Amino acid sequence: MSHNTFGHLFRVTTWGESHGPALGCVVDGCPPGVPLTEADIQPWLDRRRPGQGKFVTQRQEPDAVRILSGVFQDERTTAKFGGQVTTGTPISLIIENTDQRSRDYSEIATSFRPGHADYPYFAKYGVRDYRGGGRSSARETAARVAAGAIARKLLPGVTIRGAVVQIGPHAVDPGRIDFSVTGDNPFWAPDPEIVPVWERHLEQVRKAGSSTGAVVAVEATGVPAGWGAPLYGKLDAELAAALMSINAAKGVEIGAGFAAAALSGEENADEMRMGNEGPLFLSNKAGGVLGGISTGQPVTARVAFKPTSSILTPRRSLDEAGREIELRTKGRHDPCVGIRAVPVVEAMVACVLADALLRHRAQTGGGAHVLGENPKS
Amino acid sequence: MSHNTFGHLFRVTTWGESHGPALGCVVDGCPPGVPLTEADIQPWLDRRRPGQGKFVTQRQEPDAVRILSGVFQDERTTAKFGGQVTTGTPISLIIENTDQRSRDYSEIATSFRPGHADYPYFAKYGVRDYRGGGRSSARETAARVAAGAIARKLLPGVTIRGAVVQIGPHAVDPGRIDFSVTGDNPFWAPDPEIVPVWERHLEQVRKAGSSTGAVVAVEATGVPAGWGAPLYGKLDAELAAALMSINAAKGVEIGAGFAAAALSGEENADEMRMGNEGPLFLSNKAGGVLGGISTGQPVTARVAFKPTSSILTPRRSLDEAGREIELRTKGRHDPCVGIRAVPVVEAMVACVLADALLRHRAQTGGGAHVLGENPKS
Amino acid sequence: MSHNTFGHLFRVTTWGESHGPALGCVVDGCPPGVPLTEADIQPWLDRRRPGQGKFVTQRQEPDAVRILSGVFQDERTTAKFGGQVTTGTPISLIIENTDQRSRDYSEIATSFRPGHADYPYFAKYGVRDYRGGGRSSARETAARVAAGAIARKLLPGVTIRGAVVQIGPHAVDPGRIDFSVTGDNPFWAPDPEIVPVWERHLEQVRKAGSSTGAVVAVEATGVPAGWGAPLYGKLDAELAAALMSINAAKGVEIGAGFAAAALSGEENADEMRMGNEGPLFLSNKAGGVLGGISTGQPVTARVAFKPTSSILTPRRSLDEAGREIELRTKGRHDPCVGIRAVPVVEAMVACVLADALLRHRAQTGGGAHVLGENPKS
Amino acid sequence: MSHNTFGHLFRVTTWGESHGPALGCVVDGCPPGVPLTEADIQPWLDRRRPGQGKFVTQRQEPDAVRILSGVFQDERTTAKFGGQVTTGTPISLIIENTDQRSRDYSEIATSFRPGHADYPYFAKYGVRDYRGGGRSSARETAARVAAGAIARKLLPGVTIRGAVVQIGPHAVDPGRIDFSVTGDNPFWAPDPEIVPVWERHLEQVRKAGSSTGAVVAVEATGVPAGWGAPLYGKLDAELAAALMSINAAKGVEIGAGFAAAALSGEENADEMRMGNEGPLFLSNKAGGVLGGISTGQPVTARVAFKPTSSILTPRRSLDEAGREIELRTKGRHDPCVGIRAVPVVEAMVACVLADALLRHRAQTGGGAHVLGENPKS
Repeated sequence: MSHNTFGHLFRVTTWGESHGPALGCVVDGCPPGVPLTEADIQPWLDRRRPGQGKFVTQRQEPDAVRILSGVFQDERTTAKFGGQVTTGTPISLIIENTDQRSRDYSEIATSFRPGHADYPYFAKYGVRDYRGGGRSSARETAARVAAGAIARKLLPGVTIRGAVVQIGPHAVDPGRIDFSVTGDNPFWAPDPEIVPVWERHLEQVRKAGSSTGAVVAVEATGVPAGWGAPLYGKLDAELAAALMSINAAKGVEIGAGFAAAALSGEENADEMRMGNEGPLFLSNKAGGVLGGISTGQPVTARVAFKPTSSILTPRRSLDEAGREIELRTKGRHDPCVGIRAVPVVEAMVACVLADALLRHRAQTGGGAHVLGENPKS
Repeated sequence: MSHNTFGHLFRVTTWGESHGPALGCVVDGCPPGVPLTEADIQPWLDRRRPGQGKFVTQRQEPDAVRILSGVFQDERTTAKFGGQVTTGTPISLIIENTDQRSRDYSEIATSFRPGHADYPYFAKYGVRDYRGGGRSSARETAARVAAGAIARKLLPGVTIRGAVVQIGPHAVDPGRIDFSVTGDNPFWAPDPEIVPVWERHLEQVRKAGSSTGAVVAVEATGVPAGWGAPLYGKLDAELAAALMSINAAKGVEIGAGFAAAALSGEENADEMRMGNEGPLFLSNKAGGVLGGISTGQPVTARVAFKPTSSILTPRRSLDEAGREIELRTKGRHDPCVGIRAVPVVEAMVACVLADALLRHRAQTGGGAHVLGENPKS
Repeated sequence: MSHNTFGHLFRVTTWGESHGPALGCVVDGCPPGVPLTEADIQPWLDRRRPGQGKFVTQRQEPDAVRILSGVFQDERTTAKFGGQVTTGTPISLIIENTDQRSRDYSEIATSFRPGHADYPYFAKYGVRDYRGGGRSSARETAARVAAGAIARKLLPGVTIRGAVVQIGPHAVDPGRIDFSVTGDNPFWAPDPEIVPVWERHLEQVRKAGSSTGAVVAVEATGVPAGWGAPLYGKLDAELAAALMSINAAKGVEIGAGFAAAALSGEENADEMRMGNEGPLFLSNKAGGVLGGISTGQPVTARVAFKPTSSILTPRRSLDEAGREIELRTKGRHDPCVGIRAVPVVEAMVACVLADALLRHRAQTGGGAHVLGENPKS
Repeated sequence: MSHNTFGHLFRVTTWGESHGPALGCVVDGCPPGVPLTEADIQPWLDRRRPGQGKFVTQRQEPDAVRILSGVFQDERTTAKFGGQVTTGTPISLIIENTDQRSRDYSEIATSFRPGHADYPYFAKYGVRDYRGGGRSSARETAARVAAGAIARKLLPGVTIRGAVVQIGPHAVDPGRIDFSVTGDNPFWAPDPEIVPVWERHLEQVRKAGSSTGAVVAVEATGVPAGWGAPLYGKLDAELAAALMSINAAKGVEIGAGFAAAALSGEENADEMRMGNEGPLFLSNKAGGVLGGISTGQPVTARVAFKPTSSILTPRRSLDEAGREIELRTKGRHDPCVGIRAVPVVEAMVACVLADALLRHRAQTGGGAHVLGENPKS
């Protein structure tokens, strides 16, 4: 991952600031002949869009995506693929910023909001676009979600689902996680019982002008064995980088994660039996990855998000002149950025998997070696 | 990070299998004029070397490193630099494998040890070097440690120190962590009081033919503000990838990590005051990284390691023919691979930081903007 | 260079097709604090723009560039830098396509124009945007020129000048090349005497519905010694790739180029004397590059361009069904694409040099070692 | 291509200096299951080896290659593949330097040999290994040839053949080029009639203590349509970079190359007819590449090599103190380095094609779309 590009073969380059005219990305390396229109991308952006509840930021923007290149339609693509398809050339996506309210940035223009990227951006670059967080705004994640929508098109048998599994101190009981119910509540909660608990907690947090952290879990089912590339292109290392690059992420786990530290070898080593369609694992402590390569089990990860840094409580800080100040962050913001991160986490997993698919195909021709047989491709 | 190379400008390519004739790495992009001999690298390898206690594997090898290229010495380098120095060309390091005991691998040649990379390597590649784990053996980490020793030479003001902070269920009290005492015990424990606890635990584990997980903490002090590059070259994303790529790693945290999920915004946003030598932070929940860029605080991370997969208890598994088998892993091994990981974790942090230094210098000329002043370089 | 991105640290990703809504590029890795507005880029695009004479294509578009990200202006940037500056974040540039005439593409939709990329695009991708050449149209070079304008801002002491030195069989006398007069004629000719010769030749070519090739020379003065990186990042190798990637390029020479094959060692080895400001070379057969690193002499290269493939003479070809056909290419086109390539060649050289500057600074801190002194930075 | 690595998916990292203990390379990304032993590589090194005639350097070394990693053999690989095969992990190759004669380097230690890389290496790095040219020695090309031998194993249907087509002013008649006879003479001449001409010329050059340049042509037959990736990963751009990175290369042409500048559009646009096995081109001015993608025709290129810079005639130069000196280069050397470049040119083409094969397979699944049919894979 280099500066503003991630991926090796399915490569995503994002650009844009919170209050510039637009943001977007260029997706390069996409295979040709993949049906793709804005209608394939927009629903994923709509899921990510803020302003959908009182617990997320009130910024109201349609986040309408436009495809500027890399697709084509004529009567023959319609006959063969059903409409517009990718051509194998770079796909440029753009989302206009329509809600950059005119406001007074004089206070934060020269001050560093604690917990924000303000100070290190100043230290590194000297100059920074402080309006709405500039490049470090979570608005950039719209480009990730758009790219992820394209990645999903390359992964027809793979299902990627995220859920919030902890808000503040309140965690979902792991035994009650059901990814199919996350759409039924405004928190992407995989357990209806936690919803009122989180509602109360977030109401308190909101009233206090405070914020709270969260943990997001993600699961990709249908990933075949063999994706990933040891040792520095390990699938879990790629996931770790992709997920840790999301705004406010502070930790990444694969499978059992930190809990693995307290396990015994017997508990941790997922046993194998033979199923009708290939190996069956009797547990999935590995999170679907061993030695950096997928095992065919669900790929599972968890990401920790810190509390939103923008809070109403005054905090001690500094300004560019080195003066000691007190600062409270005004304006719209989420009390819990982790909630909005769910579609972003899913998108990053999709992009990593699409990249892994292409890399696997490059080195091996695709497919996996099957027990008791010669390799199939 | 691509397959067997990591780093963008300080680039490390490793090669070698557990039971091949040798292993090694090529370090490319190192600045010229850096004093470097085998004596700068060997001590770090000696720290990593197994066979130093009853709780680590009994494989006995000198792990003597040789530099094959990229350095030069004549009377002028001696006069100017005190001896042999790097020339800016690729540095090739080699470590002979001298303890590849001849033994019978017939059992594991066609079987998949649960928790090991055996099955996914088979699924991906069809053919694999199963002797001692082949490429997926922890022996490869010697190359990482050697590369890390070179990286440290580029970071004169930076101190990188790791410690084991949890073995099995027994964690060090965070308030008692003292990195300066890790060398006084065989566990890299940062608190002498935990040592007898871990001894008892590991003795039980060893007798039971079992294994146990661990958590390693690492801290880099002296990292100036400004290193790292948003958004996909974030310092924390690079650290996450590098650390997750270590054998048996299952989780990575930066700063408060997963604990941040339960914090309030007030607790999490590190406040700032002005010190004599620049900004002072009153806490370090961020782990020294905000928005993907270093803040000048210590960079802190934690890595979770799963229990060693090789255990004496028979486990259910499969072989390449698809037959259901029971397997117990014989031979030498560590009951807790996390212990040996400490020098590896340090080395990966060193490599990431050296790379970040070069990338920062490329884009900005180096240095950081200082409060109340123009930029210094 | 990967698919649609070139450069290592000064990275340019281009996108867009001839008849899509727009084209553009993302420039990543640009240093912060560089004054930059559209007015810095537009003049270079205006130089490249077709429709400026009867010997270049009549497509009429303003090619107005917009900067969508990566720059910022407030009263402080105005005070310090004189206006808007780069922030170190990715710079997204967009140029609308305004002259995509509605026309009938039915003939070329399924046919392969000889000399064009039609057939290999079909063979590789199956689907292709045939309107105006799609992705393989020379229109893409507008993005290169825009990126090159930014690169030039990073190279204040460097002057990059291109010229057409051969059209068809008519070459400029090397002894008469004067880069300062190229703006005085519509051919970028560095010698006024060749202008009427080329005019007559092109008039014949145009009347015959034919086309002709050309050679473009380029020279970068002010490049200090030390840029480039052996062995596979050699400055001349990077230039060769960048220049060969331009549409219709078929050859690249550095310095004496192919003529070096006929030279003796005495003639080829540029002798050195000491000048007031450093080493002086008594000739420049090397083209300013030895061992892949700049010598401080002008960097010189030449690029051969094939004749425009679109000609009015019917040519034997095939269609997608495998039928043998005869095809003549109708519509607007240049009789000599090499003429329009001059600003593109300059831009590619600028991008390669900006990248080399950043890479050199990364590994060495910048500057060059000076004869008789310690290194200056 | 970054510093000492080239290739995207078939990646070669070389290391080593002329007078260090060894040189070698790491080949990463090679598919698994490819039969490979030293016997597959050594013959190609033997072709490259100097000391085989009076017109090439008298350095006498066996250049014996050893494979240190990335291959495996047991009874099952023997049964299935016939012996040792690649495993998909990095292949480390090493060649010992056995003929680093002890000699006096005091003269060139601080002086810059004209035409050599001495001065720019000094300017960039300050310190350099001047013994035998250090890193810039043509000895490094042994690693390229070894890597190329592996690349050839991935290209079973492709034949890559090089030839010297010009030495000094004496060029082979293009109509008489027959690649099948290059092994019959010490010059890789594709026409027996030129042999005595070159013998006389080189004898004169050698007696005069001078040197001479050369042009090498290379042809790859059997490359299917569809390899390469526009726009910056164009097959011809990759070839240009790879070939220009060879020591002493000063120019690269694809197909008609610089001669294309003097052609008319009619002459240049290769017409197509339908053959029994697919499209037939009636000429190959394109050199097998259109729009950066292979056409299925032979890929043809030419590389210009400058005269050997080491000559016995004293030349004016400088030393590190800035003093003006006269320098003649003593010791063994070739009067014409271009001759030895033939196996190196072939190897670089093989590596580029192997990389293109893997990249093509990644994005498209492999294969090519066929006229009148659906895609085959």
